[in-house]
Amino acid sequence: MTNNQLTDSGQLRHFLTIEGLKKPLLTEIMDRAEQFSSISSRQVKKVPLLRGKTIVNLFFENSTRTRTTFEIAAKRLSADVINLNISTSATSKGESLLDTLHNLEAMHSDMFVVRHNESGAAEFIAQHVAPHVSVINAGDGCHAHPTQAMLDMFTIRRHKQHFPDLCVAIVGDILHSRVARSQIQALATLGVGEIRVIAPKTLLPADCQTLGVHVYHDMEAGLEGVDIIITLRLQLERMEGAMLPSAREFFHSYGLTEEKLLFAKPDAIVMHPGPINRGVEIASTVADGPQSVILEQVTHGIAVRMAVMSMALGSQPEQYEAMT
Amino acid sequence: MTNNQLTDSGQLRHFLTIEGLKKPLLTEIMDRAEQFSSISSRQVKKVPLLRGKTIVNLFFENSTRTRTTFEIAAKRLSADVINLNISTSATSKGESLLDTLHNLEAMHSDMFVVRHNESGAAEFIAQHVAPHVSVINAGDGCHAHPTQAMLDMFTIRRHKQHFPDLCVAIVGDILHSRVARSQIQALATLGVGEIRVIAPKTLLPADCQTLGVHVYHDMEAGLEGVDIIITLRLQLERMEGAMLPSAREFFHSYGLTEEKLLFAKPDAIVMHPGPINRGVEIASTVADGPQSVILEQVTHGIAVRMAVMSMALGSQPEQYEAMT
Amino acid sequence: MTNNQLTDSGQLRHFLTIEGLKKPLLTEIMDRAEQFSSISSRQVKKVPLLRGKTIVNLFFENSTRTRTTFEIAAKRLSADVINLNISTSATSKGESLLDTLHNLEAMHSDMFVVRHNESGAAEFIAQHVAPHVSVINAGDGCHAHPTQAMLDMFTIRRHKQHFPDLCVAIVGDILHSRVARSQIQALATLGVGEIRVIAPKTLLPADCQTLGVHVYHDMEAGLEGVDIIITLRLQLERMEGAMLPSAREFFHSYGLTEEKLLFAKPDAIVMHPGPINRGVEIASTVADGPQSVILEQVTHGIAVRMAVMSMALGSQPEQYEAMT
Repeated sequence: MTNNQLTDSGQLRHFLTIEGLKKPLLTEIMDRAEQFSSISSRQVKKVPLLRGKTIVNLFFENSTRTRTTFEIAAKRLSADVINLNISTSATSKGESLLDTLHNLEAMHSDMFVVRHNESGAAEFIAQHVAPHVSVINAGDGCHAHPTQAMLDMFTIRRHKQHFPDLCVAIVGDILHSRVARSQIQALATLGVGEIRVIAPKTLLPADCQTLGVHVYHDMEAGLEGVDIIITLRLQLERMEGAMLPSAREFFHSYGLTEEKLLFAKPDAIVMHPGPINRGVEIASTVADGPQSVILEQVTHGIAVRMAVMSMALGSQPEQYEAMT
Repeated sequence: MTNNQLTDSGQLRHFLTIEGLKKPLLTEIMDRAEQFSSISSRQVKKVPLLRGKTIVNLFFENSTRTRTTFEIAAKRLSADVINLNISTSATSKGESLLDTLHNLEAMHSDMFVVRHNESGAAEFIAQHVAPHVSVINAGDGCHAHPTQAMLDMFTIRRHKQHFPDLCVAIVGDILHSRVARSQIQALATLGVGEIRVIAPKTLLPADCQTLGVHVYHDMEAGLEGVDIIITLRLQLERMEGAMLPSAREFFHSYGLTEEKLLFAKPDAIVMHPGPINRGVEIASTVADGPQSVILEQVTHGIAVRMAVMSMALGSQPEQYEAMT
Repeated sequence: MTNNQLTDSGQLRHFLTIEGLKKPLLTEIMDRAEQFSSISSRQVKKVPLLRGKTIVNLFFENSTRTRTTFEIAAKRLSADVINLNISTSATSKGESLLDTLHNLEAMHSDMFVVRHNESGAAEFIAQHVAPHVSVINAGDGCHAHPTQAMLDMFTIRRHKQHFPDLCVAIVGDILHSRVARSQIQALATLGVGEIRVIAPKTLLPADCQTLGVHVYHDMEAGLEGVDIIITLRLQLERMEGAMLPSAREFFHSYGLTEEKLLFAKPDAIVMHPGPINRGVEIASTVADGPQSVILEQVTHGIAVRMAVMSMALGSQPEQYEAMT
């Protein structure tokens, strides 16, 4: 299921999930993102690496924020970008998903950046695309959000260097979070010392034990001595019925406040994939405080997406060095 | 009514309808599309031919698919593209259509790609634009869809070369189809041997006899010995009341199945302008079968639109040879 | 409140309002627009001045027309443009305005072009952006629309040269017009001889006396001997209740007809910010007549926006001279 993201020679072709990828590949993504990182602070934030490539943002679920990061990343690589909101177009004419895909392929598109509210949608699409097309998963249902996970890893590496020494706590709605799933896989692959999840039982997946994480239901114990705290967005729109107490109760028990932050190491960093629900999963004083690296995550998101896009399209880093 | 697409020296200025255009011009479009065809399979799918030109996609009727083909074609020519969905913008402020056009002209737009649900809209606009603006008809009501017709001609020429030797059958809803109207005009101009239409009486236009086509109401007789079968989309949204049997009945009588395909020549090719209603006008086994060239049509659509756009904007082919 | 548009050395950083800007700066905008004006009529209407810059059109209020002018201006400067319609995106996920802004900043955006239905929104945003981001006000509530005012000044200068000799009349709904407010400030700063407003009492702001304008309630007296007539759009959507007679009555008293135009100087020019309500604030014969410069205003709007954008992003005019 996951091997199809790599070519026979082990190069990244699609980027669908962290699952099954090896540490050297994740490290390569971060190393290349490091190169692109400097471009975004240059006077001319653009390299001609993907000039003449056509990248299609194929969003079956609306997410202006995520689409914008991919659009900016693609344009900084000089690609042409086509934004398609599928719910409002082809399918209203009754065309099947695969027909839409095959039409876009026939127009010589090079890459589909796919966002979908069903788990497995990006893999399904990758299984059916033509050989010249790469698929990037920009979030599918509760399944995976691998570029988000990699920008988180990149942010951690920028601050903490050596993964095996680190203790990372992920707090909140693990059950519905594609972000958490991808983060846990990336952290495990990179050999992080300890991974903890802190959540009420109702927001933990059934397979929690098999993920190799330590489960906590209490912030004081869970945050004790951690280096990294990753807070998650309460995906209110993905929850059903009354499995959750009110946002106010959630904040009381699991919201990251300055007081609870004291349980972690003094130099712990605080992360969140955004968009933030202030006063629900995190207090404003923490989100905007000195230990927060939330906006750095956004910045690194551009560089990481440039890295993944350029790797999947098979361009060599030497190429752009020569061209710039 | 149709002469206004040409300049005094006979060059293409607007592209509104096939009607009234001569064979050499249609051939020139196909020849130039042949040149652009190779660009789309190159590493860098882009030529600087229309750099600095502003092309406005002026869509009064939603069609993501058609807009995307024009947007991709324009970007591969290095033009700047502005997408305007008029129904949701200027007219809601009560501005007249002509005021909107004159404003866009005043911004030094070079081309309007117009899609409209009323027949004649593109010609109306072309009659009122400033001398520096070209208009491309991307489909107007039941009237014309000339770029679709030319990509179909290009696809036929790729497979069958010599038009006078060919027998072409167009199957389905001729009455409401701007595509069929433009195809018949193009086939006649290119001197195709025989043009047939196959449809129930309720889906044939009243002027059918004057079009120079042979009318069939039966697939077996109509497909006998043809080289090309063009199936049409059932434009359910354009039909009124009870003139049509159910989609199921239509498929039984006029849907192209493997069985009916046997009536045609063994090397006949199968075309469809898309999007396909599988199991209505065509069986999936035929649409995806070895005689189908439906996705090739999509590919050629980019090259043909690049050809028409660059011709209408008066750029010479030598120019881009020199620039690349 | 207004000083924050300039850097410590007096350079334009944001462009939020005409208020507080000095005459040399307004003149610099017009002089630079003069340079860009020639670009729009060249074969390749593009300069690489803002290549690699990311400009975000941040529209909280829909305005296709205004967005298009900024998008065209940005693309002719070779910037990358991201269009965001905020009402339908981030805020629907409950993210705060400032969080949205800070996220866009973190993606290394260089400029926000802001349209908002609340007065002061652009200034609020400018007060909170990071040092590397410039904010352009594309219209905020009833407050200001400074690029519109500057394109009007540019148009006047093109036709009438010497501002101190001129008498300018602004006609119509002054009360709700951000355009009028910015125009009056610009005209005063440029030292225009006399500024008149002509409107019914219900459409005049309370602070009218302090604006340094002469108030007329009658077209014959108000237009007597003027060089410039600026008609305003009746912002029906911004008016409340029964303060206004019908559009028909308004046209009778204040609509600019050929007859009323005779009160002005014979070489008076007629302006309107668009979109026009024909037969409400202006007769079609006047809008399309020989004294109208309404479409010239649109053309100049591109050049003026290119000027303001390039100035705010700190690029020197010499730079693009060298690069082209």
